Order: sequence, then C-alpha cells, then structure tokens
Amino acid sequence: MSGEFGYIDWLRKRTPAHPRVLIGPGDDCAALAPGTRPLLITTDMLMDGTDFILAEVEPRRIGRKALTVNLSDIAAMAGVPTAAVVSVALPQIANARSLAEELYLGMREMADRFQVPIVGGDTNSWDGKLVISVTLFGEATERGPVRRNGAKPGDLLFVTGPLGGSILGRHLDFTPRIAEALALHQAVDLHAMIDISDGLSADLHHILEESGCGATLDADAIPIHPDAVLRSQTSGQSPLEHALTDGEDFELIFAVACEDVHRVPSQYRQIGKCVPAGYTIVEGTSPRPLTPRGWVHPLS
Amino acid sequence: MSGEFGYIDWLRKRTPAHPRVLIGPGDDCAALAPGTRPLLITTDMLMDGTDFILAEVEPRRIGRKALTVNLSDIAAMAGVPTAAVVSVALPQIANARSLAEELYLGMREMADRFQVPIVGGDTNSWDGKLVISVTLFGEATERGPVRRNGAKPGDLLFVTGPLGGSILGRHLDFTPRIAEALALHQAVDLHAMIDISDGLSADLHHILEESGCGATLDADAIPIHPDAVLRSQTSGQSPLEHALTDGEDFELIFAVACEDVHRVPSQYRQIGKCVPAGYTIVEGTSPRPLTPRGWVHPLS
Repeated sequence: MSGEFGYIDWLRKRTPAHPRVLIGPGDDCAALAPGTRPLLITTDMLMDGTDFILAEVEPRRIGRKALTVNLSDIAAMAGVPTAAVVSVALPQIANARSLAEELYLGMREMADRFQVPIVGGDTNSWDGKLVISVTLFGEATERGPVRRNGAKPGDLLFVTGPLGGSILGRHLDFTPRIAEALALHQAVDLHAMIDISDGLSADLHHILEESGCGATLDADAIPIHPDAVLRSQTSGQSPLEHALTDGEDFELIFAVACEDVHRVPSQYRQIGKCVPAGYTIVEGTSPRPLTPRGWVHPLS
Repeated sequence: MSGEFGYIDWLRKRTPAHPRVLIGPGDDCAALAPGTRPLLITTDMLMDGTDFILAEVEPRRIGRKALTVNLSDIAAMAGVPTAAVVSVALPQIANARSLAEELYLGMREMADRFQVPIVGGDTNSWDGKLVISVTLFGEATERGPVRRNGAKPGDLLFVTGPLGGSILGRHLDFTPRIAEALALHQAVDLHAMIDISDGLSADLHHILEESGCGATLDADAIPIHPDAVLRSQTSGQSPLEHALTDGEDFELIFAVACEDVHRVPSQYRQIGKCVPAGYTIVEGTSPRPLTPRGWVHPLS
C-alpha cells in the first residue's frame, strides 16, 4: 500500500493489544473501555520552527517531545496517563514516510515507558512545515485532579527541579514528572500545581491568577540549572533570569499549606510563599516586582 | 491581556457550564465525568490549502468544518458525541485574534447544535499557514460501536445521501449524520458502517478490506448529487465518476443482512451488495472493475 494507508498499516502492525483498548488504529474512531474516575484530557500542538527545528533534530526526539509535553500536563494534575491520539501534517519531502515512522517510534518510546497506548490519529501531508498534535487522556486518582486554583496566602511554593536553559536540549529530552506528582499527591494535600512550559514566573502567575492571591519568591532558593549558567555566558541575562523566564523546563510548581511542609519530600526546593496580593522576588534583602514574563504566542 | 491568554480568557467567558464537564478550558487538563459506555475518540487535522483555502473562505465555515468532519467519524460508529478539544496553529497575520475568534464561533455553532462542549485546546501562532486539529469524544450506545469489519457476502450496501461535487461548497457545509446513524443503529443490525471522506469507492473499500469480502455496485442506483453533474460539465469526468471518487460527501455507507432490508428506512438508496471477493460496478449490463480511488495523502 502506498501513501497514508501504507503507513497506517505499518503502525497497526506495531500496536500491541491493551486491555483498555476496545478498538485501536484503523477504524473511524478508537474506543476505550470506560473508567470509573474523571477523564483528564490535554492537547498540545508542536510546530517546526517554534517547538523544534526539523532540519537540526532527529525526528525521534521530536516525537518524544510531542508526547512528553502532554504527559507533563497530566502530571500537573497528578493524573495517570491512559491513552493518546496523534495527528500529523507532514511536509512533502523525499523521505516523508521515514519521517512519519521515526516520529511515531519516538512517541512510542515515551508511550511505552508510561504504558500509554497510541490508539489512533490522522496522517496528512501538505505543502507546509511539520505539525504534530497529540491529545492525551488520563485519569484522576482517587484524590481527584490537582487544579491551579487552590493556592492560599501562607501556602509554601515548591519546584521539583532546577530551571533555565532548556533550549540547550532539555526541552526535547525531559522526563515528565508523572511519578513524582503521583507520589506527592499521595503524601501531601496539594493546593495547586502546574508544569513549567512558559517559564517559572509566567506559570506560577497562572496559579496566582486562578487562586486569587500573590506570591513572594526567594531568589537564592530558586534551583538554577547548569544550562542556565551556560546560557548566561552569551545571552547577557543572569542565570536567575533564565531560570525565571526560559520555559520548557517541565518541572512542577506546587503549593502546600505551611503546616504540611514536613510531608514534602526533602529533595524539592521551597522557592517562596503565597501572599494576599502582589508578585515579588527577594534578591538579597530587597524585594523587586516580578513580571510574569515567558513565552506567549502573539495574537495581533 | 494580550496574545494567547487574552484569547483564552475570551473563550472561557463564552464556555457554558455542562453537567459532564468537571474542568473546562484554562487548566492543565480538562476533566470529564466518567461515562458508563465505551469512550469513542476521533481526531482530524485540517490544513490551509488542503482542506480549505483561508484566503477564499469565511473562517466560520472553516471552524464548522473542523468540528463537523470529526462529528462525522462519531456518526460512522453510531456514537453520541460528548466533548471536543481544539488545537490551532494561527498564521502571523494582522487579524490573527479575530481569525481565532471566528474559527471558534464556527466550531461552537456545530458544537452547540450537537450539544458538544469544547472543553480545552492549545492556541499557537507560527510563521506557517493555518492548521486546526480537533479531537472529539463520544460514547457508544447500548448497542455498541458499529465497526468497519462486520460486512458479510450477501449483505446489502446503502448510502445515506447523494454523492459527488462536494468541492463546490458542501465539503465545508454539511450535516454530520449523527441523528441518522443513531436511528439506523436502533432500527437495524448494522454489520459495518463508514463515513465518506475519501470517496465512495475508496471508503467502501476500507469496509471490504476490514471485513474480508468484495462488493458489486449498481451504477444506476448510486445517488448522484446535482453538484456532481455541474462539475462534470467542466471536468471531463462523468457525474458517476465524481460520485465514486470526489470524497468529502460525509454521507454514510452501511451494510445490512439481506433479510433485514425491510428495516432500512426507505429514503436510503441500496447501491450494491457484498460478494465473497472482487470489487466491481455494473453499468447497464456489464460489470467493470472498480478501483478504490479517492484522496490519499502521498507519503514518498
């Protein structure tokens, strides 16, 4: 078979059976056995030139990222990922079939690692650049999904790992914090959580907006990734600025009540606390206003 | 707010509450109350220049099509649509925000008509052409999803409406056959069903491949749309050829056992029957081989 159907046939042969999957790729819809817990849904679209550069990166890494950014959204709600569908618009290049296969194999690496069957999709070619859209499903645990809107003044703010400079490569190769989120959700009452895609200052600001409170960060406490230091050597920005605004770290920010601090595993750094209003960062002894700066898609 | 967040704020204000929607747009994931029946999932990506021409068509019609092609896939399994998520890559044009809003309002027209809440999505801008990816969820009825693989030799084949020439406009403005599919599924044991996106000859061939049988069509019985006649006046192809291969009619082809024919509502035309093997069409008295021709995305 030629064209998209040859490819669909190829991937159907590579799709293992899964107890939840009643109908996999190759029919009008996929079908999953119904669950008993709230169904989580997230979707992310990645575009050549914005989220990756096809000319410079192995397609498997792009495939991995396409699935992993979605896994990170399920992690941000402390959910368990259950299944994915994938749509692609492939450029009309000589090796488009091989590109499609490599993207799929990259997605399957992450899908298999997190036991997520890829149950369907839509394969297209066009006279534009590569676009990949993944929709990922998950289930809340018995403790329910963790939202952005539950932070309260007095809550302590934590981050799961070092930040900044992800553009040097980590934005393609990262581990979504699924296991960490599930363990945290079990250990402590998480008031709010989000994953860092736009940048610490912008993503924490989403929590604050939804929760209706402010925050003060402690600059000395923010864990800075060696990549942020490396970037700062040429960027003219400080490592801290990179940690605050670079984005695509895919670590989690979470808020817990002050009295629960002893339940938070010690490897996570407390980076600040929630306050009634305002958004500031303390460097040394003086606070300065923090702008929720980070990546925003401009819509004129 | 500027950029994507201003738009997300705009659409959150327009998102009505819905009993199944536990969490709507604006968090890391949407959340739906779990159902009791199999969850159907379908996804379709539409690209400028392939599925519509942005320079020539009102964005609302494009938005409608983006949702409706997915509704048609749920119809093809005789499911009930329940919710949708939408990702877009917007071109960096002067009125991108207004384009985003018009696309959304077009989707909402169809979503509201079929009581499908749009629960989330991903809004991007890039230096490429417009891409829209919709993932739609549905539920099977108590009779289960209708698959492609249940047709048997001796089954009669029907189509729900006239075919061909959809490029003249119907490919953007069509009614997905949700209601018709549910009524049929209630009235008769549907052995197999598919919606016509690639073209009658190609899509029926999908049923035959999955079912492991052949078919003979009756050329005189195939309902030909006036648009197919109109197209044939300039295309050099016969109206029948247009009806067989144009695609994007979004009518349903279905197979029922011969003894159930009296249960099929009389408005649906019987266009042929399943046979043990081979794929032919009878014009006048002589059969000729039928090629499963239609739109295929080329992957070199």
